[in-house]
Amino acid sequence: MSNAYGAQSEEGARTPYEALEVGQKASYEKSVEERDIQLFAAMSGDHNPVHLDAEFAAKSMFRERIAHGMFSGALISAAVACTLPGPGTIYLGQKMSFQKPVKIGDTLTVRLEILEKLPKFKVRIATNVYNQNDELVVEGEAEILAPRKQQTVELVSPPNFVAS
Amino acid sequence: MSNAYGAQSEEGARTPYEALEVGQKASYEKSVEERDIQLFAAMSGDHNPVHLDAEFAAKSMFRERIAHGMFSGALISAAVACTLPGPGTIYLGQKMSFQKPVKIGDTLTVRLEILEKLPKFKVRIATNVYNQNDELVVEGEAEILAPRKQQTVELVSPPNFVAS
Repeated sequence: MSNAYGAQSEEGARTPYEALEVGQKASYEKSVEERDIQLFAAMSGDHNPVHLDAEFAAKSMFRERIAHGMFSGALISAAVACTLPGPGTIYLGQKMSFQKPVKIGDTLTVRLEILEKLPKFKVRIATNVYNQNDELVVEGEAEILAPRKQQTVELVSPPNFVAS
Repeated sequence: MSNAYGAQSEEGARTPYEALEVGQKASYEKSVEERDIQLFAAMSGDHNPVHLDAEFAAKSMFRERIAHGMFSGALISAAVACTLPGPGTIYLGQKMSFQKPVKIGDTLTVRLEILEKLPKFKVRIATNVYNQNDELVVEGEAEILAPRKQQTVELVSPPNFVAS
């Protein structure tokens, strides 16, 4: 199946509230590419030169360009929606503490762990992000509404975007 | 000036730590377009059908597709980096509580207010997001490192991305 943009679909399984267990874990990995930083800047309007301008960033405390902190936030969102609980999850809240800079070329792994099941399908999840050296780059916690029933969901992928 | 992608530059003024005052306010407005949702999905890998699949979303509690919660997070990031304190600000942390769904076509306004100046250039900022009906959609708070000196910064814009 393809959508209006000609993108392909995939499938995603989800874990309903009932089947979630405290201590249950999942992870989501993604490399941080130059293109991701440019896409984040284009989508949000965040043109902070510490992310986009090599010359400016060289004079900053980081000595080189870094990824937007909220880019890691976007990966946490993807981790929850793609892995645990999976498609159909509704986001209620997120806390994040940015511990270390993320550099272009880093590979990030979002590690999720179910912390608590609350009434009315609410769930608290640890959402910590590590780089390829196993350093904690973002410490965080999400509150979500878990799906009510088990289901395999057909996922529609977004189109491929190219710089024009 | 243009960057490797042929994008144009703009200018941004920033407010250094010293000049920030508790109660100081700024705002950042953006309409939520179909393209933004697709860009967010492409950049993050968050293909949750509640954002991308009209048929799936019609059966959800929202009855139609909604924007990713973290898309509002990206706008908060942009508000802090573009307006107050402005370019060169470093993100330390963010708390967000998603209060109401954001629909495609909504116009969001991030309202910033300086809450507290802490030692070592740290600042706490209220980061609340409202829709065009003045309804609070995201309640939040950021902790940032403010720039140390006043400066007008030349901003390099990202390229324009088109669906291929």
